[in-house]
Amino acid sequence: MKNGDYNDALEHIAHELVGMARWARAKGERIVVVFEGRDTAGKGGAIKAIHGHLDPRQCRIAALPKPSEDQRTQWYFQRYVAHLPSAGEIVLFDRSWYNRAGVERVMGWANEDQVADFLQAAPIFEKMLADDGIRLFKYWLSCDQEHQEERFRERLDDPLKRWKLSPTDVAARAKYADYTAAREAIFAATHSAWAPWTLVDFNDQKLGRLTLIRHLLDRLPDTNVPPETIDWPELGHEPLTEEFGVLHPIADFSGKD
Amino acid sequence: MKNGDYNDALEHIAHELVGMARWARAKGERIVVVFEGRDTAGKGGAIKAIHGHLDPRQCRIAALPKPSEDQRTQWYFQRYVAHLPSAGEIVLFDRSWYNRAGVERVMGWANEDQVADFLQAAPIFEKMLADDGIRLFKYWLSCDQEHQEERFRERLDDPLKRWKLSPTDVAARAKYADYTAAREAIFAATHSAWAPWTLVDFNDQKLGRLTLIRHLLDRLPDTNVPPETIDWPELGHEPLTEEFGVLHPIADFSGKD
Amino acid sequence: MKNGDYNDALEHIAHELVGMARWARAKGERIVVVFEGRDTAGKGGAIKAIHGHLDPRQCRIAALPKPSEDQRTQWYFQRYVAHLPSAGEIVLFDRSWYNRAGVERVMGWANEDQVADFLQAAPIFEKMLADDGIRLFKYWLSCDQEHQEERFRERLDDPLKRWKLSPTDVAARAKYADYTAAREAIFAATHSAWAPWTLVDFNDQKLGRLTLIRHLLDRLPDTNVPPETIDWPELGHEPLTEEFGVLHPIADFSGKD
Amino acid sequence: MKNGDYNDALEHIAHELVGMARWARAKGERIVVVFEGRDTAGKGGAIKAIHGHLDPRQCRIAALPKPSEDQRTQWYFQRYVAHLPSAGEIVLFDRSWYNRAGVERVMGWANEDQVADFLQAAPIFEKMLADDGIRLFKYWLSCDQEHQEERFRERLDDPLKRWKLSPTDVAARAKYADYTAAREAIFAATHSAWAPWTLVDFNDQKLGRLTLIRHLLDRLPDTNVPPETIDWPELGHEPLTEEFGVLHPIADFSGKD
Repeated sequence: MKNGDYNDALEHIAHELVGMARWARAKGERIVVVFEGRDTAGKGGAIKAIHGHLDPRQCRIAALPKPSEDQRTQWYFQRYVAHLPSAGEIVLFDRSWYNRAGVERVMGWANEDQVADFLQAAPIFEKMLADDGIRLFKYWLSCDQEHQEERFRERLDDPLKRWKLSPTDVAARAKYADYTAAREAIFAATHSAWAPWTLVDFNDQKLGRLTLIRHLLDRLPDTNVPPETIDWPELGHEPLTEEFGVLHPIADFSGKD
Repeated sequence: MKNGDYNDALEHIAHELVGMARWARAKGERIVVVFEGRDTAGKGGAIKAIHGHLDPRQCRIAALPKPSEDQRTQWYFQRYVAHLPSAGEIVLFDRSWYNRAGVERVMGWANEDQVADFLQAAPIFEKMLADDGIRLFKYWLSCDQEHQEERFRERLDDPLKRWKLSPTDVAARAKYADYTAAREAIFAATHSAWAPWTLVDFNDQKLGRLTLIRHLLDRLPDTNVPPETIDWPELGHEPLTEEFGVLHPIADFSGKD
Repeated sequence: MKNGDYNDALEHIAHELVGMARWARAKGERIVVVFEGRDTAGKGGAIKAIHGHLDPRQCRIAALPKPSEDQRTQWYFQRYVAHLPSAGEIVLFDRSWYNRAGVERVMGWANEDQVADFLQAAPIFEKMLADDGIRLFKYWLSCDQEHQEERFRERLDDPLKRWKLSPTDVAARAKYADYTAAREAIFAATHSAWAPWTLVDFNDQKLGRLTLIRHLLDRLPDTNVPPETIDWPELGHEPLTEEFGVLHPIADFSGKD
Repeated sequence: MKNGDYNDALEHIAHELVGMARWARAKGERIVVVFEGRDTAGKGGAIKAIHGHLDPRQCRIAALPKPSEDQRTQWYFQRYVAHLPSAGEIVLFDRSWYNRAGVERVMGWANEDQVADFLQAAPIFEKMLADDGIRLFKYWLSCDQEHQEERFRERLDDPLKRWKLSPTDVAARAKYADYTAAREAIFAATHSAWAPWTLVDFNDQKLGRLTLIRHLLDRLPDTNVPPETIDWPELGHEPLTEEFGVLHPIADFSGKD
């Protein structure tokens, strides 16, 4: 997708996102959006495309670090529960409880019993949240290995993206088909009426983002809450300028080190 | 500043930011950056310019909501302490404990005793962190009222930015000089050898961001840690493509609702 | 029950409690015991009878304060989930999520929809915990109003117990039958194979405690894990005495103010 | 001290403790009591003697587990700060931040630089809390090795107390003098006007408890806040009895397994 088209479309959609957030706050709605998918598919970019338009005090990103030793022994969902939204909040999960049946399964970090237990428990867990009134959306971002390889390569070569590349990613390359199988098992077990999966093609990431956000917005009810009117009187005097006593601004960036 | 120049300079600087983060992780450094300044000065944008280049599992934004009833009665710094970094982490505070002597003071939400107590306590609190080895940077973003008025106006008129405008902002317009005085009092009391303030002119926000990030990087030691070498074998087969069984990708975004 | 008989029986039982805790730690077991029942029934005393014999770093009491404003809008079980045990831990809930269908229902703080939602959700929530391997025990402590009145009276008259008496308690007196009905509804909806209720008569509190603890121990598997042997060498010198330089012990309590 | 005398004195003192807690709640006071001292000195018993008389929703025991890997790299005081009191609360620290200069130093788990840093930081940390209005009391419980040996022996031989004995305790026996030296260094560095240490002889534990609690009460201002009067109407009918439908009470404990 061309940059210009993307930017035009995104700006159009951004108005709806902002409106949705205003509605969520006004109505005390709680929204959870789960982002899953292959490495390099574009989860981080999709999350930023949403988060970047919203109040960071309302819309939070939950990107959990690996569990501590204690957390490993707790109820599997416990550390995720701590990040669920209060009234008016939108939480974007960058990966989620599905780790257990995704990366942990494929990499052999969880055994098949744990995976089976998880696949049975996840829809029940999600139903509890849905029954409580939390709106739960689950997106899976797909991409062909050709694109994945390109993006891995870019991470390897571009110093700005190198931090995105981990040893797990190297191992993931040989397990592309295993990830496909793991995803299918997840869909078979956890695609439910109360928390359905939506699969989005991210071979073109810009198009993927628009598709995802458009879909998300279409799943929400009419969210038209007008902004509060704000009375905006004249300033009544010339605008003031900064006055400095104790400290002064440092010299502007000149491009020379 | 022109977009092209800004983007070129930022990309150059981004390499250093990424290098700095790699160094922080390798050495177990803990970094705290406090962003304070007038409404509309550009705290959020400066934070995004840094955060956007880094691993969100390493670099966190701390934008605390208003305190709960219980928190209001606790040690003033308690809720901030919970967000301090572990080894390798970088925490960007979007506003901070300085609220007490800034917005709370100007708006009359804190009384003068509380402000005086805070101004005495803050440098001691910061010295404890510095003595523990946390690197603490404090930036104050300044802008003249002319620009503030323009930006407020833009928030009022642009639906995408309207959520940034609060009743407090309206009140802030009449208190521009009070904010100046509050800032001076903060500098006089809390500009210390272990946690100095740096004042950056954000009348031009793009230039301000570059100035701030350049300054931050210059305050850190030589941070040259080479990335780990990663062995990248040939894939050994044609790249695979996604195969879909249970669910299929939804139709791409078409721009038509 | 006479004090002497009680103390003898309790000491006997205490050995089993201590053995159970050793077993739980050795095997990484997670145990949750919920204590519910009428005001004055004796929840606190029963909890202390267990907790007093165990390592407070292993056995925790969860007595949650009233929820904050934010918590009120979260998933109902969220704040309780934060207190669930890690491997080897025993958590005693002094009141629990059943508040919703108990005191909140009777006092009119929750509406009938919320109560119905809770009664449907609770067994599902508990099944998730049980399926995850958490051992969940639920005890309801009953007592006739004659004893409740005596104990309320004692709280009213005895300055040492006065803090146990709240305005809610006064209101509870007129609602004795409502509490009975609420309890019956709870049992009908949430007495399950995976988390059964056990009803214990606490008209005699000492007898009630023994009955409850005996029952709890009988529900656990053979918990015989011998303590680690500890090598205990001779000291090899005369025992040392405290030596004081900077500060000296204060004068002993004399009974005279 | 004889049991009878102890119980009489403790009951007398309990009235003052309860009054103190009522005062703390009424005035929004925040109280922290640190209990340090040799193994077996009697910290746990002294804490229970206070906690047992108070509302567990007001008076909390903070007995922190060993720090997680992440916590080890944070600001040393961070995990303790999370347990500081809100208005009206009393927090009893069963061991505390002084671990660093006590057990960690003696056992060689902290190096001398870390100890020196801690001894410099602790009084500053405590002054911040005191300046914020938190009332901070620090008690050190002493006992001669003769008594320590007896109590260790009892823990070794009495199955009910065996869990109190750890490998660290065995090592502690050979380091009695080192603990003395560590305590002296702590006193020299951290006995301050705002957070003084009080040393209490716990060779006789019952007497020690009374001495400690009496001292604590004497350090607080006149705490006379009358309890709220509560209107206590007649019940107006015969007291009701429990009625059971869904479930019935289990059989009483009979003493026979």
